Amino acid sequence: MISKHVVDEFKRILGDSGVMQKEADLLNYAYDAAVLTPVLPGLVVRPGSSEELGAAIALCNDNGLPVTVRGAGTNLSGGTIPEKDGVVLLTGAMNKILEINEEDMYAIVQPGVVTAKLAAAVAAKGLFYPPDPGSQNVSTIAGNVAENAGGLRGLKYGVTKDYVMGLDFFDAFGNLVSTGSKTVKCVTGYNLAGLMVASEGTLGVFNEITLKLVPPPKASKAMMAIYDSVEAATETVAAIIASKIVPCTLEFLDNFTIRTVEDFAKAGLPVDAKALLLIEVDGHPAEVEEDAARVEKIAKEFGAASIQVAQNEAEKNKIWEARRTALSALARLEPTLVLEDATVPRSKIPHMVKGIEKISEKYNLPIGTFGHAGDGNLHPTILTDKRDAAAWHRTEEAVNDLFDIALALGGTLSGEHGIGIAKSGFMVKEVGQAAIDYSRRMKRAIDPKSILNPGKIIGR
Amino acid sequence: MISKHVVDEFKRILGDSGVMQKEADLLNYAYDAAVLTPVLPGLVVRPGSSEELGAAIALCNDNGLPVTVRGAGTNLSGGTIPEKDGVVLLTGAMNKILEINEEDMYAIVQPGVVTAKLAAAVAAKGLFYPPDPGSQNVSTIAGNVAENAGGLRGLKYGVTKDYVMGLDFFDAFGNLVSTGSKTVKCVTGYNLAGLMVASEGTLGVFNEITLKLVPPPKASKAMMAIYDSVEAATETVAAIIASKIVPCTLEFLDNFTIRTVEDFAKAGLPVDAKALLLIEVDGHPAEVEEDAARVEKIAKEFGAASIQVAQNEAEKNKIWEARRTALSALARLEPTLVLEDATVPRSKIPHMVKGIEKISEKYNLPIGTFGHAGDGNLHPTILTDKRDAAAWHRTEEAVNDLFDIALALGGTLSGEHGIGIAKSGFMVKEVGQAAIDYSRRMKRAIDPKSILNPGKIIGR
Repeated sequence: MISKHVVDEFKRILGDSGVMQKEADLLNYAYDAAVLTPVLPGLVVRPGSSEELGAAIALCNDNGLPVTVRGAGTNLSGGTIPEKDGVVLLTGAMNKILEINEEDMYAIVQPGVVTAKLAAAVAAKGLFYPPDPGSQNVSTIAGNVAENAGGLRGLKYGVTKDYVMGLDFFDAFGNLVSTGSKTVKCVTGYNLAGLMVASEGTLGVFNEITLKLVPPPKASKAMMAIYDSVEAATETVAAIIASKIVPCTLEFLDNFTIRTVEDFAKAGLPVDAKALLLIEVDGHPAEVEEDAARVEKIAKEFGAASIQVAQNEAEKNKIWEARRTALSALARLEPTLVLEDATVPRSKIPHMVKGIEKISEKYNLPIGTFGHAGDGNLHPTILTDKRDAAAWHRTEEAVNDLFDIALALGGTLSGEHGIGIAKSGFMVKEVGQAAIDYSRRMKRAIDPKSILNPGKIIGR
Repeated sequence: MISKHVVDEFKRILGDSGVMQKEADLLNYAYDAAVLTPVLPGLVVRPGSSEELGAAIALCNDNGLPVTVRGAGTNLSGGTIPEKDGVVLLTGAMNKILEINEEDMYAIVQPGVVTAKLAAAVAAKGLFYPPDPGSQNVSTIAGNVAENAGGLRGLKYGVTKDYVMGLDFFDAFGNLVSTGSKTVKCVTGYNLAGLMVASEGTLGVFNEITLKLVPPPKASKAMMAIYDSVEAATETVAAIIASKIVPCTLEFLDNFTIRTVEDFAKAGLPVDAKALLLIEVDGHPAEVEEDAARVEKIAKEFGAASIQVAQNEAEKNKIWEARRTALSALARLEPTLVLEDATVPRSKIPHMVKGIEKISEKYNLPIGTFGHAGDGNLHPTILTDKRDAAAWHRTEEAVNDLFDIALALGGTLSGEHGIGIAKSGFMVKEVGQAAIDYSRRMKRAIDPKSILNPGKIIGR
């Protein structure tokens, strides 16, 4: 329980409207988009300015109160699940785009800016912010940075990490720490901005973020390649990469996902196809034409039954709508959906897909597989029911096997969804105890009372 | 003094040939490429394997011995100047390229691999490792990572940071810590690889580094634009960036540098020009043609007196040779050369160049200015004599003014040369005390006996 005295202090700092303690409010923030047991916080606060944010953090530290910062709560690994009786800090009231600098191609934003809104504002000025996580219409920039969010354009354009030029953040004591720069090169001091990326709210609380912008591509072309064989599709992915073409997007959907999406969205997908590849190339118009032709040729060589090239924007949007619908469509089938994102070197995609198929058989669990094949970053999605103890046990075993296969192929536990609490226990398998010990020493020094989102990533 | 007992322990681990203690050896490693007072180490060691490296670090920690890791010693900010009576650890015997993976486009290297050798080995396999610091023919990959080295291609291709996918390093206790992955997306654990970049040997000692490779550009075109006015040249830089063309390289040379290079290299440079821009665009051939034509048009609009487009590889090499010679040519003129790299947002290049000219006048010091104008990263190079107390005092004042101007323009103390000990005292001006305190807490926890290159970046 948070004492009345402390609640009053929060109200003094944030005003009455910035402090929520009703049960309905607490329940709203007890969970995120991961399949994990909800945890009821003790208080929800909503600072409206940098000053309020810093003062709220300092108050948490003074009172040893754990604080979990939350943007849109779209987190898929439990990174925004609070501590019991702890504080949830909402960034939604700090949602201003402070500057879009066209000359020097950067944007400065507050933490709560919604990703898609920033992308649109930047596009309106003739520039481009590439990271496009699936949650972009609701997720916030600070959440994207805290998780190092990826998306469909990672293959060519990289992920959120590649766009953070600088940021300032409040440390556990409420001091404002500046790092990075508005310059494209900066080596002044430790790369704390790099450290903050993917730190899931455990090392500091973002106040302002400076993001790199780039010129938009001049042209693009999208196509759908239809396969009678999963192997042919996945081998096409490896062959495209090996040919040194870098598509901006290269996505895979298996038959299960294709049928589910079609049933849901009536997008005209070929429901008998064993797999689809959705591919977009972009850049200079001449390059786009050549790359598209080469991709088509490779896809055919590797056995694509047919290829549909989008002839206009409407057809292109239809292709991407089909991909973007996959998760929502799959989510309708069973009470519980476990969305994984174990990731492998790109050439290992054929092996990973085979491994997923075997796991699905072994545990008698339907798994829809789709995702960023060009990045080696698939999303095998297990359809299950957490209320059914036996099914849930099989699910946990299946997830464990997924991790083992990815690691055996030289891959990683998480490509873009984060570790949070969902994968914290598996970390040691990949990085080893020395990396965890190193990280814990660092965390303890930075946050001695362990108030900043405790338990995430490196456990307790 | 390092005790005989400890020296014998080093010999047991590294063999007699891996331990040097003669005065001539110690003198060799008392300085680096920065203009700073040499400091004599007590011992120089040279591990030949991971096992030896880890054991040497552990031995240093057990005995509280400061250890400065050194690749080629090309450091420009004193990052490889050892502690008095401390240990210098040479990486030169760990210089193997362990893997170049063409399918998944990465390379795994030992710390002592020379940058240009890696670039050549990668090119031989039809791939591209873009970072090209001026020292690339001698500097090592681990040194590049420790400093986050930049180079001529930063504008389009980024800097070393952008190519580190993963690494393993020994912590202060000699434990091997793994971080990052061979996958293009990875969010498993803290971004320790990101933190290690630019950490100047103060947080860990690199053992193996995994680097991202990319497909090489299909075509390129280089040109030299000749100006009767510095302003016209610097405004051209800002205009090219604003036009959303991203050249791979966009370099500036002032008249002083032009004359000095010509005197040294007889490259046929226009010695009466007030400034030169050296520009290269690369990519798809059609894009290269268009971009080159647009750059030429912009350069003329902004007042270029003439433009020479390289018609073949020989002419292109001549352009870049002129640029790469600048530092050596300037170094011949006076006993002491202070090479700065304060960096500003790209649109502020005209202001920065004006500021440098004023400083040169104010302190009556010749300053040759050249560098990566497209990155906002100029290298004003002060020609002075450290033995002349009055001149040296004026030099120190001039450097201080340079930093102040860069910061006032929204820039940074160092774009690519690092902080080391040369700029450590200036850090607070840019990042503030809170960032230094945060960094010191982190460093103390990671390296409690302060053995890892003490005093660098954040002072003591």
